[in-house]
Amino acid sequence: MKIGKSTVPHTAICTSDEHTIVVRGEDLCEALIGKLSFSEYFFLLLTGRRPDATCRTVLDATLVAIAEHGLVPSVQASRMTFAAAPDALQGAVAAGILGCGSVILGASETAGRLFVDVAARMDAGATLDDAARAALGELRAAGAAIPGYGHPLHKARDPRVDRLIAVATEAGADLRHVRIAQAIEDAIPDIVGKPLRMNVSAAIPAVLLGVGFPVGSLRGVPILARTAGLIAHLAEEAETPSGFALSYQATRELQYDGPVPAGFGSAR
Amino acid sequence: MKIGKSTVPHTAICTSDEHTIVVRGEDLCEALIGKLSFSEYFFLLLTGRRPDATCRTVLDATLVAIAEHGLVPSVQASRMTFAAAPDALQGAVAAGILGCGSVILGASETAGRLFVDVAARMDAGATLDDAARAALGELRAAGAAIPGYGHPLHKARDPRVDRLIAVATEAGADLRHVRIAQAIEDAIPDIVGKPLRMNVSAAIPAVLLGVGFPVGSLRGVPILARTAGLIAHLAEEAETPSGFALSYQATRELQYDGPVPAGFGSAR
Amino acid sequence: MKIGKSTVPHTAICTSDEHTIVVRGEDLCEALIGKLSFSEYFFLLLTGRRPDATCRTVLDATLVAIAEHGLVPSVQASRMTFAAAPDALQGAVAAGILGCGSVILGASETAGRLFVDVAARMDAGATLDDAARAALGELRAAGAAIPGYGHPLHKARDPRVDRLIAVATEAGADLRHVRIAQAIEDAIPDIVGKPLRMNVSAAIPAVLLGVGFPVGSLRGVPILARTAGLIAHLAEEAETPSGFALSYQATRELQYDGPVPAGFGSAR
Amino acid sequence: MKIGKSTVPHTAICTSDEHTIVVRGEDLCEALIGKLSFSEYFFLLLTGRRPDATCRTVLDATLVAIAEHGLVPSVQASRMTFAAAPDALQGAVAAGILGCGSVILGASETAGRLFVDVAARMDAGATLDDAARAALGELRAAGAAIPGYGHPLHKARDPRVDRLIAVATEAGADLRHVRIAQAIEDAIPDIVGKPLRMNVSAAIPAVLLGVGFPVGSLRGVPILARTAGLIAHLAEEAETPSGFALSYQATRELQYDGPVPAGFGSAR
Repeated sequence: MKIGKSTVPHTAICTSDEHTIVVRGEDLCEALIGKLSFSEYFFLLLTGRRPDATCRTVLDATLVAIAEHGLVPSVQASRMTFAAAPDALQGAVAAGILGCGSVILGASETAGRLFVDVAARMDAGATLDDAARAALGELRAAGAAIPGYGHPLHKARDPRVDRLIAVATEAGADLRHVRIAQAIEDAIPDIVGKPLRMNVSAAIPAVLLGVGFPVGSLRGVPILARTAGLIAHLAEEAETPSGFALSYQATRELQYDGPVPAGFGSAR
Repeated sequence: MKIGKSTVPHTAICTSDEHTIVVRGEDLCEALIGKLSFSEYFFLLLTGRRPDATCRTVLDATLVAIAEHGLVPSVQASRMTFAAAPDALQGAVAAGILGCGSVILGASETAGRLFVDVAARMDAGATLDDAARAALGELRAAGAAIPGYGHPLHKARDPRVDRLIAVATEAGADLRHVRIAQAIEDAIPDIVGKPLRMNVSAAIPAVLLGVGFPVGSLRGVPILARTAGLIAHLAEEAETPSGFALSYQATRELQYDGPVPAGFGSAR
Repeated sequence: MKIGKSTVPHTAICTSDEHTIVVRGEDLCEALIGKLSFSEYFFLLLTGRRPDATCRTVLDATLVAIAEHGLVPSVQASRMTFAAAPDALQGAVAAGILGCGSVILGASETAGRLFVDVAARMDAGATLDDAARAALGELRAAGAAIPGYGHPLHKARDPRVDRLIAVATEAGADLRHVRIAQAIEDAIPDIVGKPLRMNVSAAIPAVLLGVGFPVGSLRGVPILARTAGLIAHLAEEAETPSGFALSYQATRELQYDGPVPAGFGSAR
Repeated sequence: MKIGKSTVPHTAICTSDEHTIVVRGEDLCEALIGKLSFSEYFFLLLTGRRPDATCRTVLDATLVAIAEHGLVPSVQASRMTFAAAPDALQGAVAAGILGCGSVILGASETAGRLFVDVAARMDAGATLDDAARAALGELRAAGAAIPGYGHPLHKARDPRVDRLIAVATEAGADLRHVRIAQAIEDAIPDIVGKPLRMNVSAAIPAVLLGVGFPVGSLRGVPILARTAGLIAHLAEEAETPSGFALSYQATRELQYDGPVPAGFGSAR
């Protein structure tokens, strides 16, 4: 069944014959294996361009920053899945990745789109402050959350934020989107009515947009990073299982709000 | 409901308070972000140890080698999933990862276990050749395939194999498991009855086991690597869709072998 | 780490002790097993109410209508995943379900929300025709597609539509949302500029909303139904594999649009 | 790239033209929608045969028995995933299904294969008791668990077991595999050294094999059934969220076993 207009698939990422694998125009074996780090290769795969030293440094910093933060919900889901299905490592990793959604890790992308929107307003003549306030105001009017601001644990300041900005500054990255992210933080008390500090999901796009990382793939950064963390957690789960213990603890205070049949719970 | 013995979860990977995130005993912000590459951090997450330069070089080489090989089945599955559900990038990545199973990318782990088995036979006194033949013979007797040997496209020799071995050699890695992998290749014609050349799924564990990568997490290498490739393919899919075109092409020669009701297919 | 307001989980679906499992207030073993069909139980699980005969008939009809339509993209993704990872049936089912997204099967839910919107306009005093035109006009103004109308194969009329409406009519279902769905079909040529016929993703909510099925779970119907179809396809895949053949066919006309290194493709 | 022998995909499940959808040789709209229940259709999809009344009753009973058992690990994983990614219902369902693995719900299939093995020994002349003891003994010798026996909560007897056997008996099902399952239960104390009572994962194949359900698709029964339960839990999660509360509770007693940097945890 034909769905959509195109009937012939196209790609510009990879081709190969019996002797050679070509990735983004380069011979994988001669030019890439042993010559690029994995994160450099990720950037090449994604954009068709090799990253410069600044880009490589900032991209590595963001991947390291977001890969691991303990037994967060997606790691719990992954470890419970592995405990139930230990033969399928790939299934447990997939279960963990499925939690990289709009509420938790997807904020990197929505925050990035917000910064690009503010930058466009500035290109059209607005001041940084006015552009930040206008974009924030529209978000509020639409009833949307401010992506990338506020954190349940790190209330004063997510410590990864300053570190990522420092790395980007030292590496010589374009800091335009960092300034935009800070202007939004400054404007939030007025517009939202309470302070919300920039978190790692705002800092990641703020620094990555300054090194040419494509805004449309920002969600790929936490997904790739968390995959590394998930593989580590599943290696630990295989050695010292916690998946079922997490599940047991999770329901110790569970409240059942529904009806029960007559006699349920009485001694027999 | 309590399942299993343990009721309290344990972890040694990460802890945090409001100010500090600790990963594998180190302060994430002070000691790791901006100081380790993503693949170095992956090794630290997995093992609790920082990789040396040899390990880093070999690990990067394997991740680069296996991340991308064009529109293989798991990439097709991922792109079709994204075409149908473009709002959920994480779902399309998960669909692709679910194809990293025993037949395709899981061979890295089973090949690694085979090499560790041969090494144990050598530790017990067997020669390299005898150990390889004995392990192969047991696999054959059990009716199992030889993991990591043979390739549908690269019949003469998967070009990534020699390159990975060269990188490991130049980087000063322990080559014991490479020699084991080669001894198995040499023994295959006798034991299996036809030559099967080492492919990338044998070369990856052959070089990684020589730099201290844990055999139990070998399947994590293709999973992490392919995640990078999938993110690149999904960025391309978002710009120039091929998912439905792949699906259309896939069924152009589809043969329906079942019965049909009277009159089906006649003009109306 | 605390995320969100609630710290204690609640549920009203199921509780149990050593002797009794209670589901929606009833004793699973005494009152439900052997007494309800699976689709009746699905409705009870979802709503806390037992369906009447009309509801049961219509719900079964929708599940039967949408469970299977051949080697659609999500089935292909599932079969390719199973071919690569045959040990993990659950992973291949999951890969297929991940394609039940906004573009393909999710339209049941968005169409249902459109019908509820039209019904609300009628409750506020609009005529059926005016309400349909107003809702359609807003969708068009927002640049959105019309969910549940048009089909790549069944251009004249998706044959499942009339059948579902006939079943609902015969079963005595409330047909209000069917009339709304038809009014939208009638209004489309004027508002959209070309005719688009109602497809199965509009017919499903049109009939289900008339038997008390909750609009917020409409996407669950194609997901549950397709799970049955996927399990059948994976049983066939285990017997007569097609996953890799689909993948091979899919790329026979693949066009590589990127650059290649000098000498690529020449004889060696 | 060609993988495997076959290059042309085949199917016998479904074909269609512009006017007619054919499933298992029947016209979907004329012969099936409104005429078969969903579980009857599932059996037809899977086997190509319509179930008789006995088969329908037993299949429904097993699907109802296994669909729901409260906030088990896979439901927790699914609800946490939905809390993090509420836009992608299909992703949260997939995460839950990924936990239908060898340890938890996959036991239906391995228990079924055990019963088929015992039946084959009887066909070859062994008595029921001898066949059960021989098969059990081989499992023990291989160090394998006994699939379908023992339960963490229902120690005396999983109440679903007797109910499923009663339904199968009343419906007139062939009870051969039920007797095999009971013979295994009787033999366990001698062979294993402690009593283990039959649980629902043994009762399901015991009754389904007597109505012609294919042993190779037994894992599909809990997968399909749990999909219904997951959809109900995700509808509840959308109304009264518990996903993050489950995650919070799960780690309240978490023990961190790794090192920390100097000064970690001290006041600042």
